[in-house]
Amino acid sequence: MRHFEDFTQGETLVGPAVMFTAQAIVDFARLYDPQPHHLDPKAAEAGLFGGLVASGFQTLAQTFAAFFTGGPFDGSNLGSPGIERLEWLKPVRPGDSIRLKGTVAALRPSASKPDRGLITMEYQAVDDDDQPVMRYRMVHLVRRRP
Amino acid sequence: MRHFEDFTQGETLVGPAVMFTAQAIVDFARLYDPQPHHLDPKAAEAGLFGGLVASGFQTLAQTFAAFFTGGPFDGSNLGSPGIERLEWLKPVRPGDSIRLKGTVAALRPSASKPDRGLITMEYQAVDDDDQPVMRYRMVHLVRRRP
Repeated sequence: MRHFEDFTQGETLVGPAVMFTAQAIVDFARLYDPQPHHLDPKAAEAGLFGGLVASGFQTLAQTFAAFFTGGPFDGSNLGSPGIERLEWLKPVRPGDSIRLKGTVAALRPSASKPDRGLITMEYQAVDDDDQPVMRYRMVHLVRRRP
Repeated sequence: MRHFEDFTQGETLVGPAVMFTAQAIVDFARLYDPQPHHLDPKAAEAGLFGGLVASGFQTLAQTFAAFFTGGPFDGSNLGSPGIERLEWLKPVRPGDSIRLKGTVAALRPSASKPDRGLITMEYQAVDDDDQPVMRYRMVHLVRRRP
């Protein structure tokens, strides 16, 4: 478990790859983003992407989940106030394997709460060819060392 | 089904309420955001929020899903290039009922593709007391009338 003090500006952390199967794409879409291009391989052929693609919300959540689990924020992340400018750059298709890379962009102790600091991360999700499929900046509230 | 031409700048559209049960919060967290404050009511008591709260990714996806299904973009939404500045303003707790309101902030025909336009929506998710829990701006690619 890392605390706020254990992060260094400019360091890059890399999460494990997440495989997006057709089944996993449809399972997410059914409950959380029921649009034809995420839900129905046949209907998706007529869509903008010419086939099934993962919900951008799924790409966001699932790559972060993999990055988080056992990762640098596990145990110390208290929550997030938000995301700055998220871009979906390339569709994620069945069989794609995506990993999240996070670079520490800024570190700031909380002005009002001495038990926490704010870490701004610059994230990029990349495919097997290291091509970016999504990028965003997100702030995390992280525990300081007691 | 509405096309790009059927939206008016300034109009506000309101989705149906989504009930966030403890079970639904934990179900989402297990697969897509396995952090203690989303996953484990007991562990969540020691967290920043003093109890279980929904993943911000779940609030984002599920309120949009409800807004989308049978709503103004159903059938005409081709996808989204991204989100500008998303803020989680207030935790969503078990029993909260959340609805998404979307205001048409900007309309622009695509410069390169005559079959579509770009609609910038200003979204606000509100609870039963009409208090905002999340807000963001998102761009949608929407079919033009053939």
